Amino acid sequence: MKTIYLDHAATTAVDGTVLKEMLPYFSRRFGNASTLYTLGHESREAVERARKQIAKLINAEPNEIFFTSGGTESDNTALKGAFLANAGKKHIITTKIEHPAILQTCKWIEKQGGRVTYLHVDANGIVNPQSVANAIGEDTLLVSIMHANNEIGTIQPIEEIARICREKKVMFHTDAVQTFGKIPIDVKKMNIDMLSASSHKIYGPKGTGILFKRNKIWIDALMHGGGQERGLRSGTENVAGIVGFGKAAEIAMQKMKSEGEREKKLRDKIINGLLKIPKSRLNGHPTKRLPGNVNISFEGIEGESMVLMLNEKGICSSTGSACSTGSLEPSHVLLAIGMTHEQAHGSLRLTLGRETSAKDVGYVLKAVPEIVDKLRSMSATWRE
Amino acid sequence: MKTIYLDHAATTAVDGTVLKEMLPYFSRRFGNASTLYTLGHESREAVERARKQIAKLINAEPNEIFFTSGGTESDNTALKGAFLANAGKKHIITTKIEHPAILQTCKWIEKQGGRVTYLHVDANGIVNPQSVANAIGEDTLLVSIMHANNEIGTIQPIEEIARICREKKVMFHTDAVQTFGKIPIDVKKMNIDMLSASSHKIYGPKGTGILFKRNKIWIDALMHGGGQERGLRSGTENVAGIVGFGKAAEIAMQKMKSEGEREKKLRDKIINGLLKIPKSRLNGHPTKRLPGNVNISFEGIEGESMVLMLNEKGICSSTGSACSTGSLEPSHVLLAIGMTHEQAHGSLRLTLGRETSAKDVGYVLKAVPEIVDKLRSMSATWRE
Repeated sequence: MKTIYLDHAATTAVDGTVLKEMLPYFSRRFGNASTLYTLGHESREAVERARKQIAKLINAEPNEIFFTSGGTESDNTALKGAFLANAGKKHIITTKIEHPAILQTCKWIEKQGGRVTYLHVDANGIVNPQSVANAIGEDTLLVSIMHANNEIGTIQPIEEIARICREKKVMFHTDAVQTFGKIPIDVKKMNIDMLSASSHKIYGPKGTGILFKRNKIWIDALMHGGGQERGLRSGTENVAGIVGFGKAAEIAMQKMKSEGEREKKLRDKIINGLLKIPKSRLNGHPTKRLPGNVNISFEGIEGESMVLMLNEKGICSSTGSACSTGSLEPSHVLLAIGMTHEQAHGSLRLTLGRETSAKDVGYVLKAVPEIVDKLRSMSATWRE
Repeated sequence: MKTIYLDHAATTAVDGTVLKEMLPYFSRRFGNASTLYTLGHESREAVERARKQIAKLINAEPNEIFFTSGGTESDNTALKGAFLANAGKKHIITTKIEHPAILQTCKWIEKQGGRVTYLHVDANGIVNPQSVANAIGEDTLLVSIMHANNEIGTIQPIEEIARICREKKVMFHTDAVQTFGKIPIDVKKMNIDMLSASSHKIYGPKGTGILFKRNKIWIDALMHGGGQERGLRSGTENVAGIVGFGKAAEIAMQKMKSEGEREKKLRDKIINGLLKIPKSRLNGHPTKRLPGNVNISFEGIEGESMVLMLNEKGICSSTGSACSTGSLEPSHVLLAIGMTHEQAHGSLRLTLGRETSAKDVGYVLKAVPEIVDKLRSMSATWRE
């Protein structure tokens, strides 16, 4: 049976060109980038080349890019690092629909004496920039608002929010894990102070990410040690991973426009097809939405049962975010956009990627209604 | 020109078998280990297999192994995690010769209100267990002492030290980055509570490490988020890296005894050969020493010049630790064993590994004396 992978927001397969670029750095070019001999210099050069590739994608300077082990580490570094380096200001503003890497980090900061405002979002998952402006006070240190939501795909007006922050002299961080390499980002034009991104969401390897940090922003390190990454992130550089991330960023930049348009068409075909199912609704904004994101709820259905039955048909999908799978709590994002616990349990997320074809979409549009029918017919509570 | 790599303490090339094992997890088996479908299950199983392979090497339970991005993260997690989870006890004991990942983390803990004792070592770099016992007080939370030193190769009496800690109900952590997979470790028999290890020192990929944490020990997470690794280490699992580390641990276990004996013989051949050079001395313990570690000082020589000239002859070597290369400060380890600043600058570290041959040793024993002669003849200060 063919696998139809529709969980690109969780992770992606490494692109063949990316892997090819990485391979020499496992074997022949394995040097530690911090050493003095030629083998080490080659690794250093490879790391710096990747830094440029990544900087270019978001219009940053290469020395504003810091390699980490992934999006979670970048988020933790940005928030804890800002909090610990700025003892005078204790207030952070974020939203109720952030990724757990932000929300759980905020919980930690609260335990350390910080104060966090979790902003509401509207029914489409949009944060009102005015609510950010209203929440900013004398002791506000940082605003952290994700660029696009990992579950419902809603894209936030971060340019407007960041402008407000810059005017009020408050740091602005964005978790761009879902948008980096997928929709345009210009950190200069958009007044972004810090940005988190991850390699494995854009066909690069797992275990590598970046924190972009504007040169005028000062934060503490999360990890201390040998002083790599100009003291912000100690630990031997994951050279092969970094090389892969760099190449993945380069490819993403080339493909962004055409692939975005292609995915958007397929996405809307799925959305329109699935909304024909009775008592279904689209979660997230209808147009301000990631090109590859579909999130639909079906009344009377358990999302988890749906994912398992789709798996039987070779389709990889998710309900809630992959990161919180295993938990019985309904998605905090779906609750935040006003759904009931019951409604939130019945959501299906399908996230498209480069290998998603029109044929796959046809297959999905046949499989999902059948499964919804079957699950509803088995349900004791379902009434049409 | 052939490259003779003698910097295995800095990093190693990924073993061919290890890389082969990793490859499917970049492409075909790329699933996120936290997802519900088959592709995710395969990744989950691979991660758990690796956890068993690693646990076996140190006689731990698989659920006591937590994957991290490397030794630095493991050290940071152990120390900061213990400090933050135990508000009542503020005192940590370590040594003056730890890796920067421990020393810089201790500096951070001091800034957060902790108190740290940095124990002296003797001229061979050995910590006296009695000095640990003497330093333990009412508010001592944790003792962290490296298993073997990365620069001078001295192996510490950690079994004796850990026994003292267990008796006094103080946590014991060891940075075993240089010994894991190279000399026997039994966390149960040795009363170790926490242990850090890294993949890329044992022919596994960079960017992966573990923290072993005994089940009865409670620490805070360093990174918060999706709750992976049972809440201790959030972030999408680096499946390929973890698979590689697991395989590397399995191979290391098989080869440990024979390879250790082989390296020890070559090591002693180099040591005895180089000590024939006038005004040279061995740094570190003559016998309680890592099988692959040579560290020798030559009076009147700059270590860095030596490394660069050896590079011209295709030999990869180091002076001080690779992690602090680029700094002009002499090695804190060499200062701690009683060397002057001048002596400490003149040290050469050669660390052997699986591909080091008797022929390589012959080449080194010819090259080093020539370079020492040349550098001394160029030196304004050198007097024989």
